[in-house]
Amino acid sequence: MLPRYSALLTDLYQFTMLQGYLEQGMEEVAVYEFFVRKLPPGRNFLLAAGLEQALQFLETVAFSTEEVAWLEQTGRFSPKLLDYVANFRFSGDVDAMAEGTVFFTDEPILRVVAPIPVAQLVETRLINLLHFQTLVASKAARVVLAAPGKLLVDFGLRRAHGAEAGLLAARACYLAGFGGSSNVLAEREFGIPSYGTMAHSFVQAHADEAQAFANFAHAQPGNVVLLIDTYDTEAAAHKVVALALRLAQDGIRIKAVRLDSGDLGEHARKVRAILDRGGLRETGIFASGNLDEFELARLAAQQSPISGFGVGTRLLTSSDAPYLDCAYKLQEYAGRPRRKRSEGKATWPGRKQVFRSYGPDGRMVGDILALEQDRHPGEALLKPVMRGGKRLTPAASLAEARALAAAELARLPEGLRQLDKAAPYSMEVAQSLQDLARTLDRQHG
Amino acid sequence: MLPRYSALLTDLYQFTMLQGYLEQGMEEVAVYEFFVRKLPPGRNFLLAAGLEQALQFLETVAFSTEEVAWLEQTGRFSPKLLDYVANFRFSGDVDAMAEGTVFFTDEPILRVVAPIPVAQLVETRLINLLHFQTLVASKAARVVLAAPGKLLVDFGLRRAHGAEAGLLAARACYLAGFGGSSNVLAEREFGIPSYGTMAHSFVQAHADEAQAFANFAHAQPGNVVLLIDTYDTEAAAHKVVALALRLAQDGIRIKAVRLDSGDLGEHARKVRAILDRGGLRETGIFASGNLDEFELARLAAQQSPISGFGVGTRLLTSSDAPYLDCAYKLQEYAGRPRRKRSEGKATWPGRKQVFRSYGPDGRMVGDILALEQDRHPGEALLKPVMRGGKRLTPAASLAEARALAAAELARLPEGLRQLDKAAPYSMEVAQSLQDLARTLDRQHG
Repeated sequence: MLPRYSALLTDLYQFTMLQGYLEQGMEEVAVYEFFVRKLPPGRNFLLAAGLEQALQFLETVAFSTEEVAWLEQTGRFSPKLLDYVANFRFSGDVDAMAEGTVFFTDEPILRVVAPIPVAQLVETRLINLLHFQTLVASKAARVVLAAPGKLLVDFGLRRAHGAEAGLLAARACYLAGFGGSSNVLAEREFGIPSYGTMAHSFVQAHADEAQAFANFAHAQPGNVVLLIDTYDTEAAAHKVVALALRLAQDGIRIKAVRLDSGDLGEHARKVRAILDRGGLRETGIFASGNLDEFELARLAAQQSPISGFGVGTRLLTSSDAPYLDCAYKLQEYAGRPRRKRSEGKATWPGRKQVFRSYGPDGRMVGDILALEQDRHPGEALLKPVMRGGKRLTPAASLAEARALAAAELARLPEGLRQLDKAAPYSMEVAQSLQDLARTLDRQHG
Repeated sequence: MLPRYSALLTDLYQFTMLQGYLEQGMEEVAVYEFFVRKLPPGRNFLLAAGLEQALQFLETVAFSTEEVAWLEQTGRFSPKLLDYVANFRFSGDVDAMAEGTVFFTDEPILRVVAPIPVAQLVETRLINLLHFQTLVASKAARVVLAAPGKLLVDFGLRRAHGAEAGLLAARACYLAGFGGSSNVLAEREFGIPSYGTMAHSFVQAHADEAQAFANFAHAQPGNVVLLIDTYDTEAAAHKVVALALRLAQDGIRIKAVRLDSGDLGEHARKVRAILDRGGLRETGIFASGNLDEFELARLAAQQSPISGFGVGTRLLTSSDAPYLDCAYKLQEYAGRPRRKRSEGKATWPGRKQVFRSYGPDGRMVGDILALEQDRHPGEALLKPVMRGGKRLTPAASLAEARALAAAELARLPEGLRQLDKAAPYSMEVAQSLQDLARTLDRQHG
């Protein structure tokens, strides 16, 4: 199991508001929805991820005796609040889009229905979990689209933002279509195949590069991938050819070489020629180093002879867009729809549903953002996943989410599968929802 | 205590290399250094952070029986490797710059000296811990410099990259000079003052905004900060004035109002006038919403009447530069200096020290990057912190690191304290180090 964080991992205002609600006896049912307000610049779609960890959080969130005692000794909270958190469990209902579903701005991917103190108190960690995996899965989906047919491996743990980021990003990348991760714990926790070979230090620790290659091959005969850019890439490729002959006598095959610096396309071309001339046509070329979807697309356009990629920092930090403009907003309280109108941050009120239509070729053609009780053609994307704090069905497996993501990427309109910004996907706001927003605006006008 | 992650949280290549080293009996002493190769665009300096968590990791890293069993059942590893990790403890020496020290490119902030299997096996998590806090502290230092005399509070937990990122970023921000965090667990774990008031949902859940304010004030009479931008900011400011009179009868004071949307400078000016006319000269204005150092500098230039800021997403994700080009590189093995020469990634070989000189006004004037045994004028920034896997001195407290950071920011040359890119700080590479690099290049030439 992954480390569980204390329920104190939240914003202080959750407790100050809770005290307000309890003081007034405000415990009627609230509806909150999580959605993204705007696509990051240059992006065409998002991929929902993180639901599994969000539901695990909701199933288990509780304050220990020590945590309640700590809250008490801060002297900030009423006995009513302390009593409330001591007995706190998430008891609400959740509807959500399945992990791996493509979605667009203003479309809720998760809805919580619960007494307002309950639904509010889980906000911070829910956002923290849904935001990050959705961020990385959405970026990883672009990398997958840019490199069809290539082995993609997440190499980003070291520069991910902490341990949990490294682990959950490995999951989000795999969900989006990656083949694996360098992260060993991600294999243990999530069954994600782990990949890894050697660092430059391994070569440097040896007096001789060829000797380093030979030693590595003999120590790992089933996984011989040799890093050849420590000193001179092409010179190292020749050493690999020479070594291959000797290794063949022991029945050891050099699976691939790895490039990690310089102009990867140029080096790959030269190295491929050297390996081919040396009879190593089956030896692949794996590349890493400052890669992202744009670099992969450039290499694909060159028909570069690289068979796989390690994609690290830029992917795991989603460096071109390191956050999503997402929110978890109150849409209804005590049966009455609510609408926030803060400048630039107005929301669509009420409990909503997203209806998606597909063309004859199976591709998505348009969504309707509507009220939950509306009936529209298309597939209703938000489905019940939790009632009264209990899951309705066993958790979807990561393999299922990954299969769904692959199907979703295949169903995307062609323009949206490109890396460049495309004409926006058709998202219609149902008349019923527009009418409701207008009515609420008039009430507060 | 923070959740501890499994020692399996590492890159697979650490194990494949380890198998190589053990197979060859290569266990001589290696020297690795952690440094940053390039400053992010527009940045003038970096602030070292994360050493405390790095040392805690080194003191405690170990593989449990279950973890070793899991490695065994993957079928990938030799009995020699499994036996090695079962008994693994970090037994090396560490020298480091104190947390809160300003540093520049190519200057090591941490050096590990240990048998190569030991020093290599800890690489991934060491980088993961040092990189992230240094990233955020370096960004937070700019925010601090841009808003002198203002209360700064980290609001970023929800969009931080996972739980650990939220916690460690709160620490890094406080170290760099922030006044506190919204993160309650950061108060419990690190003693960082937590701040928080209300969300828009609190206002929206009430039928009437003024009633929401009154209820909040009565539930939290010692911490009355009212969020006034849910519907109409200036209209809400008038409600605050009216409410203040009634609250005064109960001895309750409105500490501040909070703005979270629109043109913060413009709203603050108008709200300040409304509050002042209403006799609320002591009521502060706190602002949040898409803030970063540039926006704070803009507001400061306008002499905006905002007394404090909640800075969130852009800070905790370091959104303009979400990663540092950092490395943990082998600099010496078995007593012989090593140099990586990969294109664009060449490193300075050997065990190094950074000597820093100060001018008559106490400001930093220049650094010398030298070999450890060199003698140069100035303060030697790398100091022994661990020997044989044991700390030499008790951990520096977070308060000490914060005080050092404040002193360091005050010692920065004026140009480097500005947000714009300044002429680079003077960093001289000692002749001894240049000679060593040349000698090694000739050996591999």
